[in-house]
Amino acid sequence: MEAGDFKDFAKAMTDYIAEYLENIRDRQVVPSVKPGYLRPLVPEQAPEKAEPWTAVMADIERVVMSGVTHWHSPRFHAYFPTANSYPAIVADMLSGAIACIGFTWIASPACTELEVVMLDWLGQMLGLPDSFLARSGGEAGGVIQGTASEATLVALLGAKSRTMVRVKEEHPEWTETEILSKLVGYCNKQAHSSVERAGLLGGVQLRSLQPDEKRRLRGETLQEAMEEDIRKGLIPFYVVATLGTTSSCAFDDLDEIGDVCNKKDVWLHVDAAYAGSAFICPEYRYLMKGVDKASSFNFNPHKWLLVNFDCSALWLKEPRWIIDAFSVDPLYLKHDMQGSAPDYRHWQIPLGRRFRALKLWFVLRLYGVENLQKYIRKQIALAHLFEKLCIADERFEIYEDVTMGLVCFRLKGGNEKNEELLRRINGRGKIHLVPSKIDDTYFLRLAICSRYTEDSDIHVSWDEVKASADEVLKGQ
Amino acid sequence: MEAGDFKDFAKAMTDYIAEYLENIRDRQVVPSVKPGYLRPLVPEQAPEKAEPWTAVMADIERVVMSGVTHWHSPRFHAYFPTANSYPAIVADMLSGAIACIGFTWIASPACTELEVVMLDWLGQMLGLPDSFLARSGGEAGGVIQGTASEATLVALLGAKSRTMVRVKEEHPEWTETEILSKLVGYCNKQAHSSVERAGLLGGVQLRSLQPDEKRRLRGETLQEAMEEDIRKGLIPFYVVATLGTTSSCAFDDLDEIGDVCNKKDVWLHVDAAYAGSAFICPEYRYLMKGVDKASSFNFNPHKWLLVNFDCSALWLKEPRWIIDAFSVDPLYLKHDMQGSAPDYRHWQIPLGRRFRALKLWFVLRLYGVENLQKYIRKQIALAHLFEKLCIADERFEIYEDVTMGLVCFRLKGGNEKNEELLRRINGRGKIHLVPSKIDDTYFLRLAICSRYTEDSDIHVSWDEVKASADEVLKGQ
Repeated sequence: MEAGDFKDFAKAMTDYIAEYLENIRDRQVVPSVKPGYLRPLVPEQAPEKAEPWTAVMADIERVVMSGVTHWHSPRFHAYFPTANSYPAIVADMLSGAIACIGFTWIASPACTELEVVMLDWLGQMLGLPDSFLARSGGEAGGVIQGTASEATLVALLGAKSRTMVRVKEEHPEWTETEILSKLVGYCNKQAHSSVERAGLLGGVQLRSLQPDEKRRLRGETLQEAMEEDIRKGLIPFYVVATLGTTSSCAFDDLDEIGDVCNKKDVWLHVDAAYAGSAFICPEYRYLMKGVDKASSFNFNPHKWLLVNFDCSALWLKEPRWIIDAFSVDPLYLKHDMQGSAPDYRHWQIPLGRRFRALKLWFVLRLYGVENLQKYIRKQIALAHLFEKLCIADERFEIYEDVTMGLVCFRLKGGNEKNEELLRRINGRGKIHLVPSKIDDTYFLRLAICSRYTEDSDIHVSWDEVKASADEVLKGQ
Repeated sequence: MEAGDFKDFAKAMTDYIAEYLENIRDRQVVPSVKPGYLRPLVPEQAPEKAEPWTAVMADIERVVMSGVTHWHSPRFHAYFPTANSYPAIVADMLSGAIACIGFTWIASPACTELEVVMLDWLGQMLGLPDSFLARSGGEAGGVIQGTASEATLVALLGAKSRTMVRVKEEHPEWTETEILSKLVGYCNKQAHSSVERAGLLGGVQLRSLQPDEKRRLRGETLQEAMEEDIRKGLIPFYVVATLGTTSSCAFDDLDEIGDVCNKKDVWLHVDAAYAGSAFICPEYRYLMKGVDKASSFNFNPHKWLLVNFDCSALWLKEPRWIIDAFSVDPLYLKHDMQGSAPDYRHWQIPLGRRFRALKLWFVLRLYGVENLQKYIRKQIALAHLFEKLCIADERFEIYEDVTMGLVCFRLKGGNEKNEELLRRINGRGKIHLVPSKIDDTYFLRLAICSRYTEDSDIHVSWDEVKASADEVLKGQ
């Protein structure tokens, strides 16, 4: 494909994208295809000869869109949002054109340096303490990871190596395997499944602790668990505090947890994957009180801050523990400037990395802090609107306090009734939700996911829920 | 940013990208900036108010391009290539607009199903046995990973869980920790550093074995190592065979290694990250003879097949070992169609995943197999041209047979002379190379990286090398 064709193709795609997104509300949110739908729609093999771009363009609706779940439709309320914005799409075009692999500083200085500065911008927007930021002049700083799962794992590896060094000094007679088998980490039972996975991957024990009645992990619970383990001869090394759980958007008591971790010299990692974006609004920062006591902090601008996936922001106070743990240094990756700027390959699991800071730069400049704050506040207001409608109907109950853009609700009564409710809602095909379950109580989750959502959309969604409830209750 | 502004911005970016790539040859390949160059060029904080897109556009040359290393310049010969093509850039635009997270089938059926079929297309293009492909109707199939590092780790985890199950049956009296401490994997000493890292991450021993004089791992070496370990009470469970090492593009003897692995029931993973793309040309498939004996096969279309990063293709004969090893199944991710199509979240480390199959679809259709083959053959011919020029100058020697697009060469004589040569070459600033070292012999690596490279560019690069050599030899 030559430059001329590219220009025509990219411009046609631009128009297609604008048309798709501006009218996304009119599409069926979840497609009605069955597994295996796509294979008969395309040839069995790649074509021998090049096709014209118009042929590909003509196939997009037929092959792709017919099987797409439209995450950016105001009718989509499943999971948590994933970001999508025009500035981020254009930034990714530039990233694709430069297409550098920024594993070291020299491999593309702009790729590393824009990331360092953007993570400083973002950290300041959130009100993170300077002790997390590169601008403080120390070793601290931020890095873009692919996902929160990777951030949790990277922090765990840092915690592991920091503790290994300390314990080896205290007990030079212990072998590495012995120490490893004594390490124990902690998280809320409601923490994301990726925390459990990080433990499996890192080969260490992780204990899931019982939260309080508000689904928050509390300091006392943590302290008791640690002391119990210490009595058994184990070594607490890592705690994950979740700010905004996936099931119900609950917030661990970071301030209490932080005190316990600091007293015991344990690495505290904050997983604020979804809710972290809200901290750009000062009125929500009370939920991260105690963040200064953490060793690492992570949230996903690719969830709720209009920066397309993947862009998971991780700040580390002492990146050296990660850098040193996995430093493999072949000659072909060495360069003369080593040490004067971060070589981000040491801060992550994979070696390769794209120029993702461009997306942050474009989004932060083309929205401005003010509009991003407006966006977050509006999404939370929309959740409260749904909550209000729900409360006004006495057949329903709210399962969890609404703090962010997630409403957890259910029909009063048993789980079966609510399972039937969800089947009806999704079966009608107009909106899409997923359920969750805590302590054997099944409930529905309605997340505000689209940047196109308006009050009128919430009324549409509520009408769907209500009509489905009518069906369920009539049937009983 | 509204749709109208997006259209203007994306179209301006399209023109900018075409201009950038078509004239990339004229830019200085590595920028002359010093660490810290970027921070003074941008404000200390994100702007409060939205800026116009024209302001961002105006900053691209000043802030970004002034610090970019141009990986797609014909003057760039470092590392290995990373892909960049117009069809892939446009496909990523569409992926950004749809912006679904394809962790399960229902989360966007098209995202999963196009990936299944594209990995079948690609596998057939490479001549992979049907036992790796989904079209065979069994459990086998392909998946897109972010990087080869992740593919190596995923395969290692599959190998680990397969072996754990077998050994637990044979020795119900052994604990999991006992078995784990006995597991041992193997790779060529010249394998990529990410293989060592996968071992560290997976918490298992990996032994680096001595290759033969052609830097190939041989079956006999592997067999001896395994038998030695078995005598010690260890359990061989995983072997990585490298097709195209990073240092010198050497090829392990897959056929011999495969026999040893099959005899001992050991998982064989093939890492063909760079060289795998060449197997679309039948004349290079002799280098992957024995691939039918492998359990998993990985290569990076994002290196040498014109599909932008990230797109690392991994095929698994028995994905169930990976699916079962890390299956954490919260209610909010369950769906009614589970089992009738892959839920790719179980095939990878992170939970989230973009719609990356679009890039493959666009590139394969808009180039066609024929043009992709032409592209590979031309790049290899360009490497042979450089080799010929090098051989004709009696001051130089070729360090390794040229098979693909990499030439390993050096000035006859000691390492210092060659270190000085590289310093001069990169110091002149016209082309960019990195070195490597095997068994204390330092050499230079010249990789053909750009799709714009022509014969005349190779002559320019050779002239630079020659002129630098003149300087070095005159100085002595």
